[in-house]
Amino acid sequence: MARALLLIERRELVARLSIIVFSGTEDKLIPLGVISQAAAALGYEVKIFATGWALLRLLKRPAEPTWPKEFESMVPALAKGMQAANVPSWVEMLKQAKSMGAKVYACSMMAQVMGLKKEDFDPALVDDVVGVTTFLTEAEGGQVLFI
Amino acid sequence: MARALLLIERRELVARLSIIVFSGTEDKLIPLGVISQAAAALGYEVKIFATGWALLRLLKRPAEPTWPKEFESMVPALAKGMQAANVPSWVEMLKQAKSMGAKVYACSMMAQVMGLKKEDFDPALVDDVVGVTTFLTEAEGGQVLFI
Amino acid sequence: MARALLLIERRELVARLSIIVFSGTEDKLIPLGVISQAAAALGYEVKIFATGWALLRLLKRPAEPTWPKEFESMVPALAKGMQAANVPSWVEMLKQAKSMGAKVYACSMMAQVMGLKKEDFDPALVDDVVGVTTFLTEAEGGQVLFI
Repeated sequence: MARALLLIERRELVARLSIIVFSGTEDKLIPLGVISQAAAALGYEVKIFATGWALLRLLKRPAEPTWPKEFESMVPALAKGMQAANVPSWVEMLKQAKSMGAKVYACSMMAQVMGLKKEDFDPALVDDVVGVTTFLTEAEGGQVLFI
Repeated sequence: MARALLLIERRELVARLSIIVFSGTEDKLIPLGVISQAAAALGYEVKIFATGWALLRLLKRPAEPTWPKEFESMVPALAKGMQAANVPSWVEMLKQAKSMGAKVYACSMMAQVMGLKKEDFDPALVDDVVGVTTFLTEAEGGQVLFI
Repeated sequence: MARALLLIERRELVARLSIIVFSGTEDKLIPLGVISQAAAALGYEVKIFATGWALLRLLKRPAEPTWPKEFESMVPALAKGMQAANVPSWVEMLKQAKSMGAKVYACSMMAQVMGLKKEDFDPALVDDVVGVTTFLTEAEGGQVLFI
């Protein structure tokens, strides 16, 4: 019982939010930036595990933005609205989250599948390349989103 | 320690499920309705934070339904099946969830980006326009889904 | 208070990860397999609730794989990379997760909508057909992902 109580007490003191980001469409990277930044500002321990298509946007030479086919016609209006509302890009928001302690990991398995090495990732965005087991262990007991 | 125990006890008594709904494709709004309704019926404290494309379906004058391009050919069969099985629409299920206490918030940042004001949202579906920080604080300690 | 402490102690001892899988595109089934397998190997209680398009890939006679339209051009490279990296298919990973105790449920409502009966599902993949209320009750207090 004592062990359980100690674990719980620690978790109450630092809320933990982990995000698995697989979707690499540009629209879904906006909430990645917004939520990470807001949670980090609230003092949450934020951990991001990037995998799948999302890896291609975290490279030193990132892939071109991809949008979901069904919403393509709305992209120009969205981009214009983001600019008019002075909303920072998801890259800027992610960097803000990182400056407040958020960590971003790239999935080692998917990196291998895509032929990507640690030095291919933008070091301003990605802290390390780790396996899903490491990520799950760090995320244990906290909230987890799959984007 | 006493503070931690009190917080925990409260959370055990009322389970909390929060849903961030970003995808505005019509298929993904079905599980939004189903899960909200079922969780509210189970006595969960249900909070929904609508953002991104999903905002366009919560307006007084909602956008036309959008389906993922890759599943478009299956939409007529799905619609027919929903009708044959007497499954209520996601709008009806969301209203049922709300009648049992669920709250629906529209993301203030994305509303601004899309040029939407509080009076543009259907008051039968949206309770308020709030920021992500408010939502995260309300969701703290509970389960969170990203749809 | 005693009741709350007992519930908490049990949850500390067995971490619980539940996954709602709605997206039936083939790319998103990869993290379903990877995460289920890794969590089960870590000793998590893993419960999967398959619904929506994902049901069509869990049948005795499964539908052909579907990929998101916007990433279709990258599928051959991804498939080649999976093979070169010796990554098992999501079906194999899901079976490994099940051999370590993971349970897979098909959503009864969506099965009815799609005209699917329990005997239509591959018994090597699906344990039972249940309602969302049953799933939410089993998932209570643990982490939940929506894929």
